[in-house]
Amino acid sequence: MSAHLGDWRGRYRGAAICVVRPATTAEVSAVVRACAQAGVAMLPQGGNTSLCGAATPGPEGDTVLISLSRLRRLRAIDPENNTMTVEAGCVLQTLQEAAAQAGRLFPLSLAAEGSCQIGGNLSTNAGGVQVLRYGNTRDLTLGLEVVLPSGEIWDGLRALRKDNTGYDLKHLFIGAEGTLGIITAAVLKLFPLPRARATAWLAIASPALAVRLLGDLQARFGALLTACELVSDVALGLVCKHFPTAQAGFSASPWYLLVELSGGDDDSSRRQAFEAFLAEALESGTISDAVVAQSGEQAQRLWALREHIGEAQKIEGLSIKHDVSVPISRIPEFVERAGRELAQAFPDIRIVAFGHLGDGNLHYNQSQAAVGENAVFIAAQAAVNRIVYELVHELGGSISAEHGIGQLKREELLRYKSAVEMEMMRAIKRTLDPQGLMNPGKVL
Amino acid sequence: MSAHLGDWRGRYRGAAICVVRPATTAEVSAVVRACAQAGVAMLPQGGNTSLCGAATPGPEGDTVLISLSRLRRLRAIDPENNTMTVEAGCVLQTLQEAAAQAGRLFPLSLAAEGSCQIGGNLSTNAGGVQVLRYGNTRDLTLGLEVVLPSGEIWDGLRALRKDNTGYDLKHLFIGAEGTLGIITAAVLKLFPLPRARATAWLAIASPALAVRLLGDLQARFGALLTACELVSDVALGLVCKHFPTAQAGFSASPWYLLVELSGGDDDSSRRQAFEAFLAEALESGTISDAVVAQSGEQAQRLWALREHIGEAQKIEGLSIKHDVSVPISRIPEFVERAGRELAQAFPDIRIVAFGHLGDGNLHYNQSQAAVGENAVFIAAQAAVNRIVYELVHELGGSISAEHGIGQLKREELLRYKSAVEMEMMRAIKRTLDPQGLMNPGKVL
Ligand SMILES: Cc1cc2nc3c(=O)[nH]c(=O)nc-3n(C[C@H](O)[C@H](O)[C@H](O)COP(=O)(O)OP(=O)(O)OC[C@H]3O[C@@H](n4cnc5c(N)ncnc54)[C@H](O)[C@@H]3O)c2cc1C
Ligand SMILES: Cc1cc2nc3c(=O)[nH]c(=O)nc-3n(C[C@H](O)[C@H](O)[C@H](O)COP(=O)(O)OP(=O)(O)OC[C@H]3O[C@@H](n4cnc5c(N)ncnc54)[C@H](O)[C@@H]3O)c2cc1C
Repeated sequence: MSAHLGDWRGRYRGAAICVVRPATTAEVSAVVRACAQAGVAMLPQGGNTSLCGAATPGPEGDTVLISLSRLRRLRAIDPENNTMTVEAGCVLQTLQEAAAQAGRLFPLSLAAEGSCQIGGNLSTNAGGVQVLRYGNTRDLTLGLEVVLPSGEIWDGLRALRKDNTGYDLKHLFIGAEGTLGIITAAVLKLFPLPRARATAWLAIASPALAVRLLGDLQARFGALLTACELVSDVALGLVCKHFPTAQAGFSASPWYLLVELSGGDDDSSRRQAFEAFLAEALESGTISDAVVAQSGEQAQRLWALREHIGEAQKIEGLSIKHDVSVPISRIPEFVERAGRELAQAFPDIRIVAFGHLGDGNLHYNQSQAAVGENAVFIAAQAAVNRIVYELVHELGGSISAEHGIGQLKREELLRYKSAVEMEMMRAIKRTLDPQGLMNPGKVL
Repeated sequence: MSAHLGDWRGRYRGAAICVVRPATTAEVSAVVRACAQAGVAMLPQGGNTSLCGAATPGPEGDTVLISLSRLRRLRAIDPENNTMTVEAGCVLQTLQEAAAQAGRLFPLSLAAEGSCQIGGNLSTNAGGVQVLRYGNTRDLTLGLEVVLPSGEIWDGLRALRKDNTGYDLKHLFIGAEGTLGIITAAVLKLFPLPRARATAWLAIASPALAVRLLGDLQARFGALLTACELVSDVALGLVCKHFPTAQAGFSASPWYLLVELSGGDDDSSRRQAFEAFLAEALESGTISDAVVAQSGEQAQRLWALREHIGEAQKIEGLSIKHDVSVPISRIPEFVERAGRELAQAFPDIRIVAFGHLGDGNLHYNQSQAAVGENAVFIAAQAAVNRIVYELVHELGGSISAEHGIGQLKREELLRYKSAVEMEMMRAIKRTLDPQGLMNPGKVL
């Protein structure tokens, strides 16, 4: 059972009565019904890649851990309707591949895609690198099948783009981190496979200029803009230090943007328009350097610079991580003020900032430059969190843009949600799970 | 009070204690609190354009009708974040105009836009003609402010594209037709204003070919495809009969498609690519005729052919209307089988079919060709509904794609929703509105 009882980051470890591995919705239902009758707590688990301890049981050992990994049938794929119906235990990457084989794109994409499962993605409303264009997992979902805490099965597997027949119940279960029921299957949206792609790495002086450039890109290219990732020089520096092959030879700059256009259209004029746009931005001084990938392979090398940031940070040692969002227009103010306030409180702090500018979502991580002093610094986590979260809250942001609440941020939730909202959430929980058996101790 | 007590189609008329017209959220809250304390039922009303009697009180005269029309401030517009924060009583068209003035598109667009209010659009999750690209009202919403049935105010006015901090409560109120609370304000998504547009009217032999062409258009043009409307020859015939200036001179065809591309890009190569695509489709025989608008004015004339269908039907007299959806891949089967079964049961039936092919959403209306016999035919409404809805249900579709349930389809809901789903909906209703005072007799 061990692999099921600890989390990916090695921060949480719990205990369970047993791990149950049902293979069908009916089996999930039977397990849940038995637990409900016996008054035993349940924890649904997907790929166990949660970054907030959402899929790790508590220490009491009174929980039945229900692994969904054997529910992995692709039930149907309907290219004409641009949908596929899949079971919760399907690994995300296998779904991307199945869609591609049918000539379609399933756009959800994140670094854990080789092991996370679609049921986990749904239950955390996962984001990733293409949210700017395609939305979060919630936006990619048309229907759900759910085993309710009573063991009853709700068949909401509709494959419709329009359906106004009463309350849209699926949204309760999406993002609920397994606290309201067990998702067993879903109908997901598919898109045309992009035939053309243009990728560029840009050097830009400030987040304010980056926000302006984002607006210009959207005005010019609309939905063709599928990624706009911000990377600080500190973040890039760590990647270049630990991945020597990753050297890219840009002129030094405090900030960078990774920009990608993609679309159904294989028009060569697209690339020309993109290069003309970048030439103008260089001329007007909005950006100071630009590298446009000349091949798919070079595009991948540019993406690797972005994707290796997490790994590079890990090599450097522990850090305090924040996964926050603010309105895009407030990103420059957030970066400026958070940086200033943190530097005042912790003079030797090192800030690694990067993320999905187009979604207003920053990964905003702190450590001490001298690795030896880091242990002391990590002890100040509460004070660092407070500075970051207070500012996020003041700017109308979210303390968890992507990763959820789990057990990691339960107390923070109480601080930043209104009493009215907390009580509504609790009322929903009591209504759907009156015995409080589904993933207790998480979120609420 | 009279204008508030009857519905737009003239089918329902009710009674109320009074009409209250609060001007602020605090005033709405005070009214609701007073009603809740006195145990008096409430009906929120927007532009009163509901097509299913959702905004008309019952005959008992025991309801306080709360009109939102004085809550009409545009609280904020943030072009960099692509959002605007608006009050519930804002008329849809004024919001489209405010967005355009800020250089942005608010894409929700429907024939009632001059009088319906955004609070009504949210509460019905309205659709319209650009859902294919931009989604329903639900998909255009980032945050809500709601006065709960207790009178408490929930401030969920977040302007974030990513926020995974607990249950996403706004989706309960969107599409709830005023049965769970009163929406007082919302944060809405904005998009770049399209700079280029290409509109074409195509003659096509069958819905099956139309579905195939839709797939080809999506593969080729991706998100640039912003409308794909199907129109039957009978529907076009009515328009040409009653709007003589609407003659368009296409070669006769059993079906037509109105197709529009639009995007941020003002590339002239776009139009060339579109015309080349249509030339290929003509050559391969997928379509038999094509008219590409050569000016904005001609594009408007093509759109008028589509938009006058409702009016033309009205002139012809009463008809039995269905607003249904099925998976796009099942549209051909639906049209074929429904047409056959209805013709068997009612030999002189006239079917007017048109709608949003790209959303799998058909407006599917029936009358008798000889107007004199229509009164008899209308009496058979229940039998006609049964044929249409049984088939919709068999094909995994929805009996109300856009217009909601209101009082019109409450009984049908019981027939086609599972007991599990009905009970979940009732449980949510009891939880948020324990006294059952919000718009009683609607939906549930
Ligand atoms: C390297 C790495 C990169 C990541 N990148 C991203 C990223 O870019 N964006 C992002 O949003 N997240 C990211 N994550 C976080 C995580 O991968 C996602 O949240 C993922 O969606 C979790 O899926 P999972 O199958 O591993 O779920 P688990 O970790 O197993 O479970 C997560 C939660 O969902 C519940 N759950 C799982 N399956 C079900 C089910 N079938 N029914 C009901 N509840 C269920 C669990 O109880 C738990 O509360 C990353 C994680 C790692 C390790
Ligand atoms: C000519 C015409 C064309 C139409 N075309 C379309 C179309 O293309 N697509 C489509 O989806 N619909 C269409 N409709 C239906 C209707 O216009 C829409 O449903 C519209 O969104 C209703 O808005 P309203 O402000 O008129 O709401 P109302 O009719 O006043 O109310 C509708 C429902 O919402 C509730 N409600 C209203 N405001 C609030 C609030 N602030 N808080 C809580 N509840 C509230 C009411 O109680 C009622 O249940 C059309 C209607 C007409 C007359």
